[in-house]
Amino acid sequence: MIVILRQGVTEPKIEEISQWLESLGQVNVSVVRGSQTTILGLVGDTSVIDQDSVESNEWVETVTRVQEPYKNANRKFHPDDTIVEIGGHKIGGEHFQVIAGPCSVESSEQIMTVAQSVKSSGAHLLRGGAFKPRTSPYSFQGMRAEGIELLLEARKATGLPIVTEIMSLAHLDLFNDVDVIQIGARNMQNFEMLKELGHCQKPILLKRGLANTIEELLMSAEYIMAGGNNNVILCERGIRTFEKYTRNTLDLSAVPVLKRLSHLPVVIDPSHATGFSYLVTPLAKAAVAVGADGLLIEVHNDPAKALCDGAQSLNCTEFEELMQDLKRRIAFENRVM
Amino acid sequence: MIVILRQGVTEPKIEEISQWLESLGQVNVSVVRGSQTTILGLVGDTSVIDQDSVESNEWVETVTRVQEPYKNANRKFHPDDTIVEIGGHKIGGEHFQVIAGPCSVESSEQIMTVAQSVKSSGAHLLRGGAFKPRTSPYSFQGMRAEGIELLLEARKATGLPIVTEIMSLAHLDLFNDVDVIQIGARNMQNFEMLKELGHCQKPILLKRGLANTIEELLMSAEYIMAGGNNNVILCERGIRTFEKYTRNTLDLSAVPVLKRLSHLPVVIDPSHATGFSYLVTPLAKAAVAVGADGLLIEVHNDPAKALCDGAQSLNCTEFEELMQDLKRRIAFENRVM
Amino acid sequence: MIVILRQGVTEPKIEEISQWLESLGQVNVSVVRGSQTTILGLVGDTSVIDQDSVESNEWVETVTRVQEPYKNANRKFHPDDTIVEIGGHKIGGEHFQVIAGPCSVESSEQIMTVAQSVKSSGAHLLRGGAFKPRTSPYSFQGMRAEGIELLLEARKATGLPIVTEIMSLAHLDLFNDVDVIQIGARNMQNFEMLKELGHCQKPILLKRGLANTIEELLMSAEYIMAGGNNNVILCERGIRTFEKYTRNTLDLSAVPVLKRLSHLPVVIDPSHATGFSYLVTPLAKAAVAVGADGLLIEVHNDPAKALCDGAQSLNCTEFEELMQDLKRRIAFENRVM
Amino acid sequence: MIVILRQGVTEPKIEEISQWLESLGQVNVSVVRGSQTTILGLVGDTSVIDQDSVESNEWVETVTRVQEPYKNANRKFHPDDTIVEIGGHKIGGEHFQVIAGPCSVESSEQIMTVAQSVKSSGAHLLRGGAFKPRTSPYSFQGMRAEGIELLLEARKATGLPIVTEIMSLAHLDLFNDVDVIQIGARNMQNFEMLKELGHCQKPILLKRGLANTIEELLMSAEYIMAGGNNNVILCERGIRTFEKYTRNTLDLSAVPVLKRLSHLPVVIDPSHATGFSYLVTPLAKAAVAVGADGLLIEVHNDPAKALCDGAQSLNCTEFEELMQDLKRRIAFENRVM
Repeated sequence: MIVILRQGVTEPKIEEISQWLESLGQVNVSVVRGSQTTILGLVGDTSVIDQDSVESNEWVETVTRVQEPYKNANRKFHPDDTIVEIGGHKIGGEHFQVIAGPCSVESSEQIMTVAQSVKSSGAHLLRGGAFKPRTSPYSFQGMRAEGIELLLEARKATGLPIVTEIMSLAHLDLFNDVDVIQIGARNMQNFEMLKELGHCQKPILLKRGLANTIEELLMSAEYIMAGGNNNVILCERGIRTFEKYTRNTLDLSAVPVLKRLSHLPVVIDPSHATGFSYLVTPLAKAAVAVGADGLLIEVHNDPAKALCDGAQSLNCTEFEELMQDLKRRIAFENRVM
Repeated sequence: MIVILRQGVTEPKIEEISQWLESLGQVNVSVVRGSQTTILGLVGDTSVIDQDSVESNEWVETVTRVQEPYKNANRKFHPDDTIVEIGGHKIGGEHFQVIAGPCSVESSEQIMTVAQSVKSSGAHLLRGGAFKPRTSPYSFQGMRAEGIELLLEARKATGLPIVTEIMSLAHLDLFNDVDVIQIGARNMQNFEMLKELGHCQKPILLKRGLANTIEELLMSAEYIMAGGNNNVILCERGIRTFEKYTRNTLDLSAVPVLKRLSHLPVVIDPSHATGFSYLVTPLAKAAVAVGADGLLIEVHNDPAKALCDGAQSLNCTEFEELMQDLKRRIAFENRVM
Repeated sequence: MIVILRQGVTEPKIEEISQWLESLGQVNVSVVRGSQTTILGLVGDTSVIDQDSVESNEWVETVTRVQEPYKNANRKFHPDDTIVEIGGHKIGGEHFQVIAGPCSVESSEQIMTVAQSVKSSGAHLLRGGAFKPRTSPYSFQGMRAEGIELLLEARKATGLPIVTEIMSLAHLDLFNDVDVIQIGARNMQNFEMLKELGHCQKPILLKRGLANTIEELLMSAEYIMAGGNNNVILCERGIRTFEKYTRNTLDLSAVPVLKRLSHLPVVIDPSHATGFSYLVTPLAKAAVAVGADGLLIEVHNDPAKALCDGAQSLNCTEFEELMQDLKRRIAFENRVM
Repeated sequence: MIVILRQGVTEPKIEEISQWLESLGQVNVSVVRGSQTTILGLVGDTSVIDQDSVESNEWVETVTRVQEPYKNANRKFHPDDTIVEIGGHKIGGEHFQVIAGPCSVESSEQIMTVAQSVKSSGAHLLRGGAFKPRTSPYSFQGMRAEGIELLLEARKATGLPIVTEIMSLAHLDLFNDVDVIQIGARNMQNFEMLKELGHCQKPILLKRGLANTIEELLMSAEYIMAGGNNNVILCERGIRTFEKYTRNTLDLSAVPVLKRLSHLPVVIDPSHATGFSYLVTPLAKAAVAVGADGLLIEVHNDPAKALCDGAQSLNCTEFEELMQDLKRRIAFENRVM
């Protein structure tokens, strides 16, 4: 941690601040004196020092962290790729997975049809929303508990492990048999939820918030991991920018950045990121090339009749074609699926 | 609602789509035919029609809403300003309120000192965080239940109603005696929480999310109001942009926009918006001038020792000076406090 | 064009506005009357109608364009891909090109070394900055006229056509022998420059501005094409967002969006987009997969000594390895280089 | 300047890098050694050290500037407010000015009418666009040279000094008699133009670009001032964000930030920032309260017939009312106009 002091700070004040900083954690402070600037260099374990607190000292101009503020999620301390296993399927390292299914579970027939179709196309995991976060209270809110029942039935019929979003800890019991619990973009900083899910061992699919930095995504993963659950899968699903032709802006650079900073698997959701089905295929291809560990793709048996997000869903035929193409690409990258 | 059809759509298809749209709600569809474009104009109650669903029709190019998607929060249907009453103090209409206090409750002595100080300076409501949303799991997380106890004691001692943030519905019982429940920026789209808080009659201070549009803020208010609770106070606290000299970018234009679109009171939080105490005073002045109904200001008896957000807190003397100045401004604007 | 009128508009006023709109262009106006809303549908050539002017009518609530505001750049009117030819090398359609070289020309030896190296690695075009847009007036500003001389010598020695940026029309004569004139991100809306370059037939590499939408990029291309120059190559080089780990956020979705809207070739600049050399290779791979027509890559013989943007430059060995990899990928995509 | 070295750097390498850094400028390097991190603190004049160049060293992890990279615009070296004088009217310090007029000069009658009206309402400077930057090549491009003639005639008739935008250095001769040359948002980083305008002594109104940081705005001012022209007036006119209800997001926090960092006057353009006339008045009031030195306001005699930006123009009556109100506010703030 680097602390820059304001112009005019006196020697006794520098001494006092240095002692205060050393008292905050197990750190040593070195002073670099310039003609206009005094720099304090803190070395040691600065993770327990609150940056806000230091910045609010009247003689402190700026504070810069040198070490990343996350530990469990940090590749520096865990050089090997984490591989998360879900119902016999692995994700991370050389393992690539496609998670496919409808935005919302709408009926037994619908989820069964889509599940069987995506399975025959080669997807290994089934996604489907039972609890749906919708901007409007007047939009379809999901089938809720019944939706989870239908997903479990679809798993029974197809063998595909299921991934579905939790919106409130009050529903946690309903997720007992779910294979992967998804934390949606709007809940990425629902810290009470993150803490609670850190106490189970179920794999967590953690989506990046619309306006959250890569560092904040890793800090949210850190919340889960600090509780003891290391089965975290990160998901980039587009960030909010000024561009209007796409629903969000997919930040594919986040994949190699996350791979460098962290050992956790990273998947891409091109459906929510772009909002239009014609963009899903080219960005799924790019996601494979950029080094992602998996894809989350919306597939619906009849997108025009979908109760939610139909505009961004592939139909079953389009998904089948995409999977044929992706299989060649995954082999090209020396990955296995 | 306006639906633009793709080039090449046939007459029978236009007919079919029109009938489908009429079947979705109580609307009439008029067709405008151009040489290259066909436009469908829907009139009637389109609020129940899901825009996504229409957009996913293969012949639909774009869909534009004409009516705002919110009703209870809409000034068109409720022309008069809503005035929320909190422990005898009114906010909205001609009534302006300053809500002041520390970012976090840290001890009995601290909250009591600050509460008495802000009261004597003229604030009518006390804020203080018991449950704190922190980016890092290793930062101070608030005094939690004990913090709420201390706030209630400070209310008893000073008579100031209290405003504090809820982070999980699991803690709802602890908020029984709280005067105003705050929903933080990170929970603005925690829809399960919004729904639940719609079932009480307690005033809700709803903060705009870092990357949420004004329309989304109103839709979140609509979630609460749809449940029957009309005591919603909107709060602008800065949005996330590329600018680095401020923590966020305070969007003061949101005040006159919200005032035109909605009847709900609007308050400004210049402390979180800017992140630096030297910016709080000028932006508080601007908030009064732009037509806000109140301010949310962080005050700490010793900012340099604050456990959270000290850099943006005023000390008690600075707050006293600000209040002296604000009183003149509020009178200038013909508002009462 | 769709014009929504305000609530309360009278029949004679609707009539008057309709006649006024019909007088502005060769359009017909149809009126759709709802209980609360009146919609005017304009069909015909609305490109000459100024949207601002219509929006400022006191009875107009909103105006929505249906047709894209660009014609020459629009795929609807030119379905086939434009292929731009530069010194015998084609870009667009099935043709993929890699444009490589240093950020700045620094000396005869430097540009000659890099030019020969990138040629032997398989690049067909040489880039290099002679006039450099730098945020600080105290940073290296490029070798200017001398830099262009050195680029021309490097072309003579290697046969590689050259691409270099123009910063002022006052320098236009110096670009007579340059093969491709680059318009940098900061000049994307330097409309006087765009107009002037529309009067030559030289290929123009037009970079998207940091905060410009895809539609604005196409409108800037339209400025050039309206003057008669159809040799426009579009370049996505990252947009400005809140993310801090990358210099900008590369918007790869822009490639399939631009391909759908326009017939012009699209290249990607992963060096400026990301700002770090370790990100160039994965994003170059992704650019090929997403369907770009080419890449613009910074290569320096000694990045640590580069006078500009060394942190994002590949060295010659790294570039050679990247090209070996890209050749396989371009073949995989059935493109030719 | 603080340089953080990568983990694993050896002592001889630290020595070598330190000597290299000392050779780049007149600086001394101090080394702070931690168990995992090595920090180099550079003190002295680091303004000539290119940050990019240091960052591209393979052993350098990050570089942080301590000193601001601007000197002439920096309040640290020029503590007193700069006051710019224009035709006898002062701006800066205690002096507040309102610059008013139409977006575009459209005819002799129009500019004369508006000029006389804004003068009688109390504005001291007349604005009007002769050269207009328009997104579309098919929109009205301004009256150009003739527009400047008409502005000069309006000045002759009213005595109001004129402010108008330059779009190309090729037109510079036409601006000989103009009182204030405006550099538009799209040209804020047209560095060749900035340099050239640094060689005259005419006041320059420099608008912040849509996606430019406050620091970049000051660096562009520095380009002008480095040439010897200190008559720079900064203008905040809204930045581009995700919000859709306003054309841009007015960043009023920029005023106190700029006032702290720099001695230059700062004006606000609420017309372009918001895009809607109903927002101009509340944000003009807020601009006075936040400490701006002036306002730039669009006024048109008949906004609905304006050839450009009518939706955001006040009519003459609205402007008269605004000025009556502003006079009281300026007096309240102890400023003079």
